[in-house]
Amino acid sequence: MTHRVLVLPGDGIGPEVMAETVAVIELVNQKLGIEMSLEHALLGGAAIDAEGVPYPESTAQKAHQADAIILGAVGGPKWDGLDRAIRPEKGLLGIRSDLQLFGNLRPAILYPQLAGASSLKPDLVAGLDLLIVRELTGGIYFGQPRGFDTTDDGQRRGYNTYVYTESEIRRVTVLAFDLARKRGSRVCSVDKANVLEATMLWREVVNEVAKDYPDVELSHMYVDNAAMQLIRAPKQFDVMVTGNMFGDILSDAAAMLTGSIGMLPSASLDQAGRGMYEPCHGSAPDIAGQGIANPLATILSAAMMYRYSLNEPQAADAIERAVGVVLDQGYRTGDIAAAGEASVSTSTMGAAVRAAL
Amino acid sequence: MTHRVLVLPGDGIGPEVMAETVAVIELVNQKLGIEMSLEHALLGGAAIDAEGVPYPESTAQKAHQADAIILGAVGGPKWDGLDRAIRPEKGLLGIRSDLQLFGNLRPAILYPQLAGASSLKPDLVAGLDLLIVRELTGGIYFGQPRGFDTTDDGQRRGYNTYVYTESEIRRVTVLAFDLARKRGSRVCSVDKANVLEATMLWREVVNEVAKDYPDVELSHMYVDNAAMQLIRAPKQFDVMVTGNMFGDILSDAAAMLTGSIGMLPSASLDQAGRGMYEPCHGSAPDIAGQGIANPLATILSAAMMYRYSLNEPQAADAIERAVGVVLDQGYRTGDIAAAGEASVSTSTMGAAVRAAL
Ligand SMILES: CC(C)[C@H](C(=O)O)[C@@H](O)C(=O)O
Ligand SMILES: CC(C)[C@H](C(=O)O)[C@@H](O)C(=O)O
Repeated sequence: MTHRVLVLPGDGIGPEVMAETVAVIELVNQKLGIEMSLEHALLGGAAIDAEGVPYPESTAQKAHQADAIILGAVGGPKWDGLDRAIRPEKGLLGIRSDLQLFGNLRPAILYPQLAGASSLKPDLVAGLDLLIVRELTGGIYFGQPRGFDTTDDGQRRGYNTYVYTESEIRRVTVLAFDLARKRGSRVCSVDKANVLEATMLWREVVNEVAKDYPDVELSHMYVDNAAMQLIRAPKQFDVMVTGNMFGDILSDAAAMLTGSIGMLPSASLDQAGRGMYEPCHGSAPDIAGQGIANPLATILSAAMMYRYSLNEPQAADAIERAVGVVLDQGYRTGDIAAAGEASVSTSTMGAAVRAAL
Repeated sequence: MTHRVLVLPGDGIGPEVMAETVAVIELVNQKLGIEMSLEHALLGGAAIDAEGVPYPESTAQKAHQADAIILGAVGGPKWDGLDRAIRPEKGLLGIRSDLQLFGNLRPAILYPQLAGASSLKPDLVAGLDLLIVRELTGGIYFGQPRGFDTTDDGQRRGYNTYVYTESEIRRVTVLAFDLARKRGSRVCSVDKANVLEATMLWREVVNEVAKDYPDVELSHMYVDNAAMQLIRAPKQFDVMVTGNMFGDILSDAAAMLTGSIGMLPSASLDQAGRGMYEPCHGSAPDIAGQGIANPLATILSAAMMYRYSLNEPQAADAIERAVGVVLDQGYRTGDIAAAGEASVSTSTMGAAVRAAL
């Protein structure tokens, strides 16, 4: 069976890190005898430039046909002046929603070789391995009604709707519990159930789902406390599950705990396990085109793709092992180099990973 | 002129830390010849127990007559089983809204004597002094409509409304800029204007207000990035201003950066500068009644009260100086004692502050 993979290089450093990643994918396929067709399409600013919209119909068609999608990053100041409706972020939100990629997996793993990069004291983060499961196609990001109006006394007003149905909550919670079973068997659900009705329902449904997982330990935490606990003692967590908005905030905080966001991949899955894979970092327009970006987060996103959507775990293992090897060998791009340490280019890092394969 | 101050001991450790604080207030008044009438009332769980509601009419009346309110903390597992409408948190939200205490000041200050308590590396937090100004009476906490309903296909659904008008945004932004002028003259406004309409208006209005403050430097940051930056390099911030929900999360994160949340006071101000003052920490039911809670955050809240609502800056200075002295002298309650260090009781700490006055 031939896997159909869609490549979306995106904007900024996206095309640079994607070139290295595609080369890694091709080598892995060749070594392991994996059949794959790779198609390319545009998303975000690149799509706006070429076709006037951030998520063109041609990209949507290819996306629906693919078994998995690998994405670089979208956005940049170049498109800041545009009307909101056609900005690069809309392309990202559009494809997530169109493909119903409701389950966003954001691991925060501390690589022992990079332990010094964390802003936290070493003993608090040594061995950190937590997984945030963020609901990605609902909540306040997509809730209706939303927009602007005018109050009776003539003031401008802006509004959004934070809304969850039980099925939206259930499917992402089931995903989190299933993943926890393969890890530390602990789930912490994050809400603000002491204030927000939408998250009271969240807590209720999570408790219902938990009944089917007596072997998994469930706890609940308010979002303000969760933000504190991530800073105080991040290793207390195994899997955290939360809504779209809280997940956006907490997963970035968790990523930063490692100090090396240039290393962190992510997956966004639909009900059938098809998914989109992308680095946690953004398009970094300030360093785009210089050939110095870290390709490892995107390369590790490809590993997640093999594992979660293509059912080729040996390819995932091979890539992750190779990344470990290059870190051991001392290869560092600028973002993960310690003060005074020499740094290598994007293409050198990519070549090192391929050599380690 | 006699200042009218209302004391709300609240629940859990609230009454214990408040007893020490009232004793400090009385001593300061006596030493500096400040005239003050102190009234007491119930809020939260204590009010539920006595009168069946978390914010009784009698408390509201006294609150409206007061120049300032000092609060311990509310809530505890004892009231968890109650109907949402009469839980302790409702008392807190009720009094904030009733008195229109829209401007919540949450300083995160690292005391040099307690530098070791932070989970961040020392050089990242040494000298940390940031102020979060959180909008406290609007946004998703109070937006209508809110509640539960059923979808067409029979599913439960929970929803809230995130809404801001321009006047709500303007008054808290003006407060933040005014405060920034007395500090480092920098304001960072936090929003999610790449996704949420309510926060697009937020950014627009902040930009309008900024025109009146050419001497204050303004920046904007998305909330996910702000959570990262607080962990990566918290000293980059002077004043941060944000909405109710983001402020809840970020101010707790910022407080935790110091490692000593038992030290941090807060103020909640109305348009006329009347305010409610309370520690950042909660009611800590696990240690309530043991006489070991740290009273310093509440004592420092009294200092903020003298400064912001009573216009008695010399009293505020005296209290803050006294707290510095007891820390220098080595007094530590359990929460701020280093491993192996001896710790003192709530009353010993209170007495030490009074002795230092
Ligand atoms: C770019 C933005 C719309 C997006 C989000 O908020 O989801 C990003 O922050 C992310 O987390 O992937
Ligand atoms: C208790 C709760 C309602 C409250 C809030 O969310 O505002 C608390 O977390 C706070 O920050 O004062």
